[in-house]
Amino acid sequence: MTVQALLTASKAAAPLLARASNELKNQALSAIADELEARVAEVLAANQIDMRESQTKLSSSLLDRLQLTEQRIKSLAKAVREVIDLPDPTGKILEEKKLPNGLHLQKVSVPLGVIGVIYEARPNVTIDIAAIALKSGNAVALRGGSAAENTNRVLIDIVQVGLSSVGLPKELVQTVDEFGREGAQQMMQARGLVDVLIPRGSANLIQTVVNESKVPVIETGDGVVHIYVDSEVDDSIVTPIIVNAKAQRPSVCNALETLLIHEAVAQHLLPQISKALVDAGVTIHGCERTQAIISCVPAADDEWEREYLSLDLSVKVVSSLDEALSHIAKYSTHHTESILTSNPVTAERFLNENDSAVVMVNASTRFTDGGEFGFGAEVGISTQKLHARGPMGLRELTSSKWLVRGSGQVRS
Amino acid sequence: MTVQALLTASKAAAPLLARASNELKNQALSAIADELEARVAEVLAANQIDMRESQTKLSSSLLDRLQLTEQRIKSLAKAVREVIDLPDPTGKILEEKKLPNGLHLQKVSVPLGVIGVIYEARPNVTIDIAAIALKSGNAVALRGGSAAENTNRVLIDIVQVGLSSVGLPKELVQTVDEFGREGAQQMMQARGLVDVLIPRGSANLIQTVVNESKVPVIETGDGVVHIYVDSEVDDSIVTPIIVNAKAQRPSVCNALETLLIHEAVAQHLLPQISKALVDAGVTIHGCERTQAIISCVPAADDEWEREYLSLDLSVKVVSSLDEALSHIAKYSTHHTESILTSNPVTAERFLNENDSAVVMVNASTRFTDGGEFGFGAEVGISTQKLHARGPMGLRELTSSKWLVRGSGQVRS
Repeated sequence: MTVQALLTASKAAAPLLARASNELKNQALSAIADELEARVAEVLAANQIDMRESQTKLSSSLLDRLQLTEQRIKSLAKAVREVIDLPDPTGKILEEKKLPNGLHLQKVSVPLGVIGVIYEARPNVTIDIAAIALKSGNAVALRGGSAAENTNRVLIDIVQVGLSSVGLPKELVQTVDEFGREGAQQMMQARGLVDVLIPRGSANLIQTVVNESKVPVIETGDGVVHIYVDSEVDDSIVTPIIVNAKAQRPSVCNALETLLIHEAVAQHLLPQISKALVDAGVTIHGCERTQAIISCVPAADDEWEREYLSLDLSVKVVSSLDEALSHIAKYSTHHTESILTSNPVTAERFLNENDSAVVMVNASTRFTDGGEFGFGAEVGISTQKLHARGPMGLRELTSSKWLVRGSGQVRS
Repeated sequence: MTVQALLTASKAAAPLLARASNELKNQALSAIADELEARVAEVLAANQIDMRESQTKLSSSLLDRLQLTEQRIKSLAKAVREVIDLPDPTGKILEEKKLPNGLHLQKVSVPLGVIGVIYEARPNVTIDIAAIALKSGNAVALRGGSAAENTNRVLIDIVQVGLSSVGLPKELVQTVDEFGREGAQQMMQARGLVDVLIPRGSANLIQTVVNESKVPVIETGDGVVHIYVDSEVDDSIVTPIIVNAKAQRPSVCNALETLLIHEAVAQHLLPQISKALVDAGVTIHGCERTQAIISCVPAADDEWEREYLSLDLSVKVVSSLDEALSHIAKYSTHHTESILTSNPVTAERFLNENDSAVVMVNASTRFTDGGEFGFGAEVGISTQKLHARGPMGLRELTSSKWLVRGSGQVRS
């Protein structure tokens, strides 16, 4: 078996799923959840091998992502069952019109076809993506990385047993892990077999895929996220929002990385913000003006473009909204920015003039999330402008096609 | 000036257009149309230089595309004025909801930013794309090819004079032609400066851009288009639709390239189809079974994947709908396919099981067109599944962003 042959099998299987009823897809999801719960011990055993082999190679945060527990596996099964209740995103009539010449046009939602996903050391993604892909009618080819190889092998088998049990081809969910790095390389070249590639993981991984792929890519996740505290602001909301955005879950892409604060309120607000952050375990990397107000680590010149994904925060005092906007334009990855202000005119300028996927007023950046937005399931957060922007749900895994019904019309 | 500097200027100018009112954008379009009409002689003189220099280098169909006449220039100005009347595709609220925690979410349409367009020997595209980009709030960087360089230089100046006359920066519409092939090369690398690349032209050009670009690409236009004549069909519609689809304008992407016909009706229908096609100047390249029924050129093995763009048509007799569907799946570029049938069940199967941007029943494939679909203006026909599929109008040159308005919400 070659990667090409494997992906050709994905492509051949995809139309069978595209035409499957929502009921059959839900039966498959239910069978997968059952199988996952029945084989917890087997998954744990495989995961322990991966954990042992990665112990000295991965950081503790990556090891934490790699590890599955009985509880985590049960949560995964529960998440699969939740996908059953979501509406089928395919077969929706998105637009409909009758032309003067009598042609009847319908634009309907259809699956994308074959989705490639490249990720690292996160076996939960294997089940999550398989469930979301199935529900949206897409075949999926996965490259889950060598660290999670044993776990993923069992998880893929569980999914394939579930598929077979309802009469769907197991080629709908496949892994290219056995081919090592070559598997990912060839997926990136497989234009015509793979319809879209979604990298999930480090900024490095995403950059590599974006640079090397000939298959269209949806960029997700990289988040140098800003909050700007305006000169006019309700003091009471400032510290809670900043602490929540930074410290509630620092390892995720919607966590705050840079705080910008207007000079008119910095003197007054920074001490209380700083105290709460330090209490939450955060290290502040401040600009010179920040250093003059609170005790902190001096921010290096390249600090402003860093996505810490840790309990670190860069802080800069700015002289105006304009300075805040140009700082964000320069350093943002266009994921999420939030302004804290009581002035509605300032709020609207911030909303309009930031070129990011999600722009907020008086809210924690942690809300940029498919679950929070009510999508039910999340594929990732798109930071690009084509096809999907911001949190991606089932709908973002569909395309459309035009159906034209006539009675002999020719063009004049 | 480097390509990088030029594109940086595009990116810096783009937000000014993104925030311009529909009224100001319309004033700019009106000024451009006026300027174009006032400088017809200058455009013609430049075009004559290009025509002279290309006389021995280009095919007659490319020379026809390169040539501008007074009439064609006036039509271009008219097309620019027609864009004024189209609705502004930006600033539309696409979705709106209030979350249980009180957060107010809006998904609004916004311009993509900077659009790069790479095309060949078609100076009309320069004006068309400039108008469509302006209306949709996007800056545009053009690479129009060496053959049309003199014409395009004057046309770009006309657009820039129009922009300046209403106070918009001329950097909103720029050409990289002065940098030769390097201009196109660098646009393809300019991730972060250019938001999307749209190649318009030969299949070769499109393939090169798709393979080499690091900027997201929208693939347009390549059309190996099929009509399948079913065993059950109203005879009277067959010949008119086939002649229209093939011969009305053979050089365009929605023109018919391969006719598939069911064996049950081939004997009876092929002679009349063939006569009408031959009368229209068409050369038929037939499979063996076709050759047994009508006189034609034998089709070579690679004929089925060819986009002739000329008065040539490949014809194949098939034994079933399934054979027609698999032939299309193998050779189609996923642009447009049409079935001629009187059986509604067969029609629905054809609509559902073809994975093409536009699938038709009993209609000429020539209807796949932004103008015919009522979009008012057309950017091209997307044959890919991400972002846009089928005819692309102004709306397809927009992205979206989420605006979130809160009152101090934090995530629990």
